[in-house]
Amino acid sequence: MEYRFARRMTRASPSFLDRLFAVSRDPRIISFAGGLPATRFIDVEGLRDAAIHVFEDEGEEALQYTTTDGYLPLREFISRRYRKRLGLAIPADWIQIVNGSQQCLDIVAKIFVEKGDTIAVERPGYLGAIEAFSLYEPVFRDVTLDAEGPDPGEFSQVLRRSRPKFFYGVPNSQNPSGVTYSRDTRRAVAEVIAESETIFFEDDAFGELFFDGKPRPPVAGLVPERAILSGSFSKTIAPGMRIGWICAPPPVLSAFNRAKQAADLHSNALCQRILAAYLERTDLDERVRRIAAAYGENCRLMCELLDDDFPDGTSHTEPEGGMFLMVTLPAGVHSHEVFEAGLAKGVAILPGTPFYACGGGESTIRLNFSSVGEDEIVEGMARLASVVRDLSSRAA
Amino acid sequence: MEYRFARRMTRASPSFLDRLFAVSRDPRIISFAGGLPATRFIDVEGLRDAAIHVFEDEGEEALQYTTTDGYLPLREFISRRYRKRLGLAIPADWIQIVNGSQQCLDIVAKIFVEKGDTIAVERPGYLGAIEAFSLYEPVFRDVTLDAEGPDPGEFSQVLRRSRPKFFYGVPNSQNPSGVTYSRDTRRAVAEVIAESETIFFEDDAFGELFFDGKPRPPVAGLVPERAILSGSFSKTIAPGMRIGWICAPPPVLSAFNRAKQAADLHSNALCQRILAAYLERTDLDERVRRIAAAYGENCRLMCELLDDDFPDGTSHTEPEGGMFLMVTLPAGVHSHEVFEAGLAKGVAILPGTPFYACGGGESTIRLNFSSVGEDEIVEGMARLASVVRDLSSRAA
Repeated sequence: MEYRFARRMTRASPSFLDRLFAVSRDPRIISFAGGLPATRFIDVEGLRDAAIHVFEDEGEEALQYTTTDGYLPLREFISRRYRKRLGLAIPADWIQIVNGSQQCLDIVAKIFVEKGDTIAVERPGYLGAIEAFSLYEPVFRDVTLDAEGPDPGEFSQVLRRSRPKFFYGVPNSQNPSGVTYSRDTRRAVAEVIAESETIFFEDDAFGELFFDGKPRPPVAGLVPERAILSGSFSKTIAPGMRIGWICAPPPVLSAFNRAKQAADLHSNALCQRILAAYLERTDLDERVRRIAAAYGENCRLMCELLDDDFPDGTSHTEPEGGMFLMVTLPAGVHSHEVFEAGLAKGVAILPGTPFYACGGGESTIRLNFSSVGEDEIVEGMARLASVVRDLSSRAA
Repeated sequence: MEYRFARRMTRASPSFLDRLFAVSRDPRIISFAGGLPATRFIDVEGLRDAAIHVFEDEGEEALQYTTTDGYLPLREFISRRYRKRLGLAIPADWIQIVNGSQQCLDIVAKIFVEKGDTIAVERPGYLGAIEAFSLYEPVFRDVTLDAEGPDPGEFSQVLRRSRPKFFYGVPNSQNPSGVTYSRDTRRAVAEVIAESETIFFEDDAFGELFFDGKPRPPVAGLVPERAILSGSFSKTIAPGMRIGWICAPPPVLSAFNRAKQAADLHSNALCQRILAAYLERTDLDERVRRIAAAYGENCRLMCELLDDDFPDGTSHTEPEGGMFLMVTLPAGVHSHEVFEAGLAKGVAILPGTPFYACGGGESTIRLNFSSVGEDEIVEGMARLASVVRDLSSRAA
């Protein structure tokens, strides 16, 4: 049977993802390939209590259809938290609830991008975003990410030459690289945006998770009318509830809202209310501090092992927060070889290639440090070091 | 500030929807305009118990990221129910969970439709589908729906001439018309589909809600390789959980799954598990019987009042189930006039026009009978009858 799919569906996913999925339940494999927050920080009991409260006090409302924009007290909480944490004045009516911030990627692309339009992304960039955007058949341009963020000269040039509909960036502890934009880069990027026709689409999934507990001001705060800012409770509370949000100027939010309504009417009403009830009775700062501290320890351990046990020519990013770091392999070692040899030795990593929208990344791998414990890191990194040493000596 | 939206966003929504939203909280207005299932049938207590069970027995899994396809025991429940209710063999791996069946509309359009492709729909057709499909910039063709379903000759002609990527239909108690395809029409439609290149996209949101409690066999069962069948728990359990599903042949489901992953990774894991736990301990047949019986009484009352109190030239559909019926107004009476005059008299209805993808519907209105009680129907229909009488005598 032949099916007449749209051309947008012809781009194939990287084949190693299927292979990864196939081995993902093998208990002998230590996985640095995933992207899960640590399960032990999910407050099952607290969320249960919030749920019982919702069922008892507002069960009918929570289980009936509701409006597309989302539960107002939750949007007000988000607004207050921006003010308190970051000094940003983002009113609740600039905020809309979505099914995890992944949904923002789909809908923002939908409202802005038609086939052949340019989208600019980071190099490397977030795989989930590249996948979501791809379905709108854009032309990708990428801007090199260094330790300080996107190179401002290259950024400016791409915006001037290609007039992208938006630039998608993750200034805080980016996935996959772990890079955080410096203060100067934020300012430089905002200045370029202000003089361009391009929207800054800022994904802030990890902004709460800086190891030093200090916030970094979003680029969106410098160019509010030219920016879209997304956030998520997946990394701080619970991903399974699929609750994230978008902040955007009213004309953009209005288009977003229309597309969201067509996409699924509204986000889960029950979980929006459970989350709002939970946040009312929880010290989120304290929660976030504990999560970030644990991830920071894992990250430092991983970096030390990379420095000490891996062959010359290995380098890595130095995350200030988040859940990921990126390793550059010694010359001649290909990330797909490391992937295959790693699985054979019982350690899973993600090759860098799918994070490069315009090609590249053969010498990089992504490591996740949030979903593993200290022992797994020590053992898994030992396995990985031996894999890289073998491949490196063969390449030399 | 100018924003460079994609052209797909330029189609404006019908303006009376904003106006309707503005008055929707006015307690003086009796509304037949909405589409909510009756809140009193939502089993808040039963769902609370199921939720407590999930938090206690599988809280961590329910709150962590999960797979895109959806919770297997829930998909297995759906598969078993198809077998039990309809004698259909639809394996769980033909089924994927979505955020309410509205999400099927968006994703099916995304995987099949590119700009300028033809989609065929019913005339009138479901507004939410027309809105979702519109964002993919198709060309719409419509097929007249009569009391038996789509006219087979017209259906065949549209499929031959326009080769639509899919025909979207709601064979059971359609929204807005309340029409149910006859058995002969189902067979005729399936025969045409089997010989065409067109997929039958069958939305079965209301199939559980036949007043006589008897199931009608889906068209998809006759042409499983050429059909997509969607379903929903919104009308039988609770819309606020946003849990629906799609059944499709593996090649279609694989494309669907990829687009769903890009759209929002997966549907709410917590609610999928709550629903599965709830369904395990609930007599769904009994629930559905009670809901359908109540809706049937409301519908019969509304039809009687239409027959008795409305001026000559008024006619209406005769629903066998579902939540809606459609009224054709006397000659010379425009549905938008009824809408405005109705609001002034304290009764809200929905004009038929937005349900006509290719234009038309000026003489029709949609009435909802699921979310109102007997007293409201009596009083609201009296107000509406007086509005239609006034407009009709003026038109004469």
